[in-house]
Amino acid sequence: MISFTCDYNEGAHPAILERLVATNFVQEPGYGADSFTASARARICEAIGHPEAQVFFLTGGTQTNSTVIATMLRDYQGVVAAATGHIAVHEAGAVEYTGHKVLTIPQHQGKMCASELKAFLEGFYADGSFDHMVFPGMVYISFPTEYGTLYSKEELSAIYAVCREYSLPLFVDGARLGYGLMSPACDLSLKDLAGLCDVFTIGGTKVGALCGEAVVFPSGKAPEHFFTMVKQHGALLAKGRLTGIQFDTLFTDGLYLKIAKGAIDLAMQLKAMFVAKGYELFLDSPTNQQFILLTPEAMERLEGKVAYEIWERLADGRAVTRFATSWATTPQQIAQLEEIL
Amino acid sequence: MISFTCDYNEGAHPAILERLVATNFVQEPGYGADSFTASARARICEAIGHPEAQVFFLTGGTQTNSTVIATMLRDYQGVVAAATGHIAVHEAGAVEYTGHKVLTIPQHQGKMCASELKAFLEGFYADGSFDHMVFPGMVYISFPTEYGTLYSKEELSAIYAVCREYSLPLFVDGARLGYGLMSPACDLSLKDLAGLCDVFTIGGTKVGALCGEAVVFPSGKAPEHFFTMVKQHGALLAKGRLTGIQFDTLFTDGLYLKIAKGAIDLAMQLKAMFVAKGYELFLDSPTNQQFILLTPEAMERLEGKVAYEIWERLADGRAVTRFATSWATTPQQIAQLEEIL
Amino acid sequence: MISFTCDYNEGAHPAILERLVATNFVQEPGYGADSFTASARARICEAIGHPEAQVFFLTGGTQTNSTVIATMLRDYQGVVAAATGHIAVHEAGAVEYTGHKVLTIPQHQGKMCASELKAFLEGFYADGSFDHMVFPGMVYISFPTEYGTLYSKEELSAIYAVCREYSLPLFVDGARLGYGLMSPACDLSLKDLAGLCDVFTIGGTKVGALCGEAVVFPSGKAPEHFFTMVKQHGALLAKGRLTGIQFDTLFTDGLYLKIAKGAIDLAMQLKAMFVAKGYELFLDSPTNQQFILLTPEAMERLEGKVAYEIWERLADGRAVTRFATSWATTPQQIAQLEEIL
Amino acid sequence: MISFTCDYNEGAHPAILERLVATNFVQEPGYGADSFTASARARICEAIGHPEAQVFFLTGGTQTNSTVIATMLRDYQGVVAAATGHIAVHEAGAVEYTGHKVLTIPQHQGKMCASELKAFLEGFYADGSFDHMVFPGMVYISFPTEYGTLYSKEELSAIYAVCREYSLPLFVDGARLGYGLMSPACDLSLKDLAGLCDVFTIGGTKVGALCGEAVVFPSGKAPEHFFTMVKQHGALLAKGRLTGIQFDTLFTDGLYLKIAKGAIDLAMQLKAMFVAKGYELFLDSPTNQQFILLTPEAMERLEGKVAYEIWERLADGRAVTRFATSWATTPQQIAQLEEIL
Repeated sequence: MISFTCDYNEGAHPAILERLVATNFVQEPGYGADSFTASARARICEAIGHPEAQVFFLTGGTQTNSTVIATMLRDYQGVVAAATGHIAVHEAGAVEYTGHKVLTIPQHQGKMCASELKAFLEGFYADGSFDHMVFPGMVYISFPTEYGTLYSKEELSAIYAVCREYSLPLFVDGARLGYGLMSPACDLSLKDLAGLCDVFTIGGTKVGALCGEAVVFPSGKAPEHFFTMVKQHGALLAKGRLTGIQFDTLFTDGLYLKIAKGAIDLAMQLKAMFVAKGYELFLDSPTNQQFILLTPEAMERLEGKVAYEIWERLADGRAVTRFATSWATTPQQIAQLEEIL
Repeated sequence: MISFTCDYNEGAHPAILERLVATNFVQEPGYGADSFTASARARICEAIGHPEAQVFFLTGGTQTNSTVIATMLRDYQGVVAAATGHIAVHEAGAVEYTGHKVLTIPQHQGKMCASELKAFLEGFYADGSFDHMVFPGMVYISFPTEYGTLYSKEELSAIYAVCREYSLPLFVDGARLGYGLMSPACDLSLKDLAGLCDVFTIGGTKVGALCGEAVVFPSGKAPEHFFTMVKQHGALLAKGRLTGIQFDTLFTDGLYLKIAKGAIDLAMQLKAMFVAKGYELFLDSPTNQQFILLTPEAMERLEGKVAYEIWERLADGRAVTRFATSWATTPQQIAQLEEIL
Repeated sequence: MISFTCDYNEGAHPAILERLVATNFVQEPGYGADSFTASARARICEAIGHPEAQVFFLTGGTQTNSTVIATMLRDYQGVVAAATGHIAVHEAGAVEYTGHKVLTIPQHQGKMCASELKAFLEGFYADGSFDHMVFPGMVYISFPTEYGTLYSKEELSAIYAVCREYSLPLFVDGARLGYGLMSPACDLSLKDLAGLCDVFTIGGTKVGALCGEAVVFPSGKAPEHFFTMVKQHGALLAKGRLTGIQFDTLFTDGLYLKIAKGAIDLAMQLKAMFVAKGYELFLDSPTNQQFILLTPEAMERLEGKVAYEIWERLADGRAVTRFATSWATTPQQIAQLEEIL
Repeated sequence: MISFTCDYNEGAHPAILERLVATNFVQEPGYGADSFTASARARICEAIGHPEAQVFFLTGGTQTNSTVIATMLRDYQGVVAAATGHIAVHEAGAVEYTGHKVLTIPQHQGKMCASELKAFLEGFYADGSFDHMVFPGMVYISFPTEYGTLYSKEELSAIYAVCREYSLPLFVDGARLGYGLMSPACDLSLKDLAGLCDVFTIGGTKVGALCGEAVVFPSGKAPEHFFTMVKQHGALLAKGRLTGIQFDTLFTDGLYLKIAKGAIDLAMQLKAMFVAKGYELFLDSPTNQQFILLTPEAMERLEGKVAYEIWERLADGRAVTRFATSWATTPQQIAQLEEIL
């Protein structure tokens, strides 16, 4: 059986494993003070074009989101997100667990829009009793979104402009960042992105690493004592080398974007294949997650041969399903899927 | 330069890396539903002699401690620990961050004693205003302790008896569990330990893994929805295979204890060597962490050749230092150290 | 100028002040162990027809809501509320501050409906990844709601049936309970209400007291060590007599409901008056809060003479305004208002 | 039976009750925007000699402490207190509930000393792993302390100097402030105190009010949006007039200090009386709380006639007891006690 259920079904890119093996007995200090981490930081600073950036390596996505959000908000503040934002739905209340509300605004295929964000903020301050309410303290978006969609440079710039107008830091959750940047529909480079937000993450777990998310403060404005708060959140690895080596490898010779591109190319093939065979798309995703409407017959045909994720069952019997490619997906797997369809 | 600063200076045991490489492209579900994790769980249940045990894999020590403690306590409760307990000092307030107080009692070379624990509990309930105070809700000890010392079977049994008398779960932090169990001074087996507490951890990070701590509820009494709370604490790995594979390997053919034994043997050699050369021990540790008093002259001699950790500088100019061996320490390194001394 | 801005513009019902004066030098123990509190508890148990009830007195509404919710939820749970629920909007994130998410469902003039609650719960458990989400742990409604509307006995019974089906405690926020029960539109008695929820509050602050909310667990199932957690939330008064005396007075000879009835009668007069004069109602509220649509001209006419609250300004220039009566409102004030209109 | 168990056994100073009655039907806005609160603020600013001060009124002591501490600390910080500090022992973990550790240092009859505070801070920053620990973020002392003792001007100045050296705000818990300032042993005026700390409280509950603590930021440096955070902590009264009227009355014509003086005079008589009758003092308290060692025979003599608090039972059968006078204590009560002794 081949699986397209998600982009974390396999281990790590072989170059990472090779590097782990090669460096295994080099003695290095713990907690991110190792030379691999230093090198990874330098490479990321260069890749994003911000030598002054601060870079931290955490292990998982939910952990990263709640740590970044909790450390950047004051007690009276919440984080603004689209109603479908990962932090608003699928992180088991990790943000609320740190004492902060997720303030949701409407979503459109997973995206918020600048004008609705602005309307929300205007409405907040226009409310006579706003000081009895949770203050918007930062804005969270994901790139790509939970629906695989992307913000254009214009859309992101507009959101960032609203954020600056209200002095709200903008946080871009890049758990699948590579897949976003390598989409044919993306008009943003990594450097562009770094210039259009206050903090963003570079997801490793879903783009070739065993684990690891890089938290990047492009302008070097991490919260004071962020290191200690990472520890307090249980997000500090004793063997920081584990994430250091992985990101150092991913950012050597552009490996990160290269393998993301491979996944995107196959995702586009997969989508075209479904369309060619007469399947209906739930939405036209430009990234590695494809959302296909499957009839009960189609699902029966795939039964036992292809694994995918069911997002929602519709009243008419069909299901919204997700097929994800990843850095590990092979052209052979796509060909196999084609045959089965 | 050779380093004895800690037991997390290197990567992972080669068998783990080999296994990561060998399984890399096997597609498995995420979040701990993979077959490696299932196998690791089964092996641990067998090793501890509790088929009914529940086992979860988290990534780091502080994370594990705060997750276990926060999920087992009710809001009105705190955790009792020796004043030197890791959670009381070196975890950046991670337990308090979850809303719970660490209630400290006296320590003796890192250990609490059953009679003082009992006196504390009696005193609490004898206090007329105890309902204005934080209720003791569980007891935390580490094995080995932060000072490398160990509880004997009798001592642990006495503590556990007090816990049961007061209906308090006993939590044993085994970040360095292997090194404790393999000490010549240890009269407890892994099975014994599992029968003398309500929850304990098997530390991977410091005993051969890249990362990972196994949380074991020997009697299968994990808090309800522990999985969701692990997620909420940011402690759930998407690629659960990473910890699954590591623990499955460590618990195959007794690797975990075997490599811990190697570290202990070398630690005993190291200690004997220091003593033979006339150095004073700060305390006589039976495990892989050795605490040596170094004079300024001795420290100068080691300068640039041997790395170790300074715990405390004494008024007389000497320093309390820590030399740690690990699964990765080689007889050659010990020999080199001897030469330098 | 006469004010209808809210129902907490004045001090306390004179009978309360007289009682405070009369008992002032009686020496009584603190923290709710006084005889006044005991008597108030007994009177409330009788009034609600549940001799086994547990009753606690806190000081304010937000405090009461967050204390009750936080102490009844487990870490992995959130509280379900209508999107307009007070806890979801106007309590400065007090619930989230305790680590819990407010899970919102649609509202209809401030009310949730049983079928939508059920659909939400069904949807939750039908979602394949529900264990990555915040579990619904209790249901919160307010009676009357933030819009002054009421649940009928049938509606409340239906909601409670859903709660029991899913083993979720139902919490009724009765900050203005008296005004709800005394509405001509209300078909529920205090005893009925006590039998249709797991915990409810009897608001004192807005119904004749200087401060104080009674938290009632009709079946006597308060969370273990609720007293200590009230203290932990900073909600325990040293001089418990202050709330004890007030509630004892309010529940002597039915004072609580009597004065609430007076406010309702005047509210109905006020509403009728507005309607008679051709004003449009924003919604037809059956309780002491009346929501009137005012034109700019009407607002000018009231300027400097009558105070009221503006809830929202509409695009057409009109405003949704709130006129509240209270136990302290006099027929003279209503007459004055009529003259000005 | 006469009671000396505490200083919150009675209601409020009659002047307060009269004022509550007199103003009862004056309509005023809620949430502290009323004219009484404004007047109380102005009077306190004048009394402390800091026109720029910010003053907020909360209801209880534990509530006030946890709100002030939580809002002034950053996530990575804890509050330093003497081991006997009220926040460290008798507030049910309210500070930890907000996510912050109480860092304790030695106490001497309830007081910390500047040199030990300094040693603690030096030690913290000298520790090589301090960024794995909770940072000291503010210093908390109580005046008088839990043992009724007082800091001299010199002692307080020395502590404040250490605080400024380390940029730590100093918080003085004045739950019984009046009784401290009026002690014959006190060489500090209210103005002196206001100049020697960053925030302090003026306790109303124990000095003549029904409830209420004034939080004073003498230099006007309250945390941003403190109002909203007070609401978030459940500490905002809808009827702010309740605390406003009380503090306005207490700070009219020096009533607060006047009634505190009365209590102190009687406490000194009480102490002298015990000493004259051959009783042993547990410690020589200069304030309204007197700690007397009572033999079983003495306790029997008082049985059923005089109430007091037992703090601790000694091994020799005697008990450390507390006799507290208050603004409500009468010379007749002292005379009665004398007779019984």
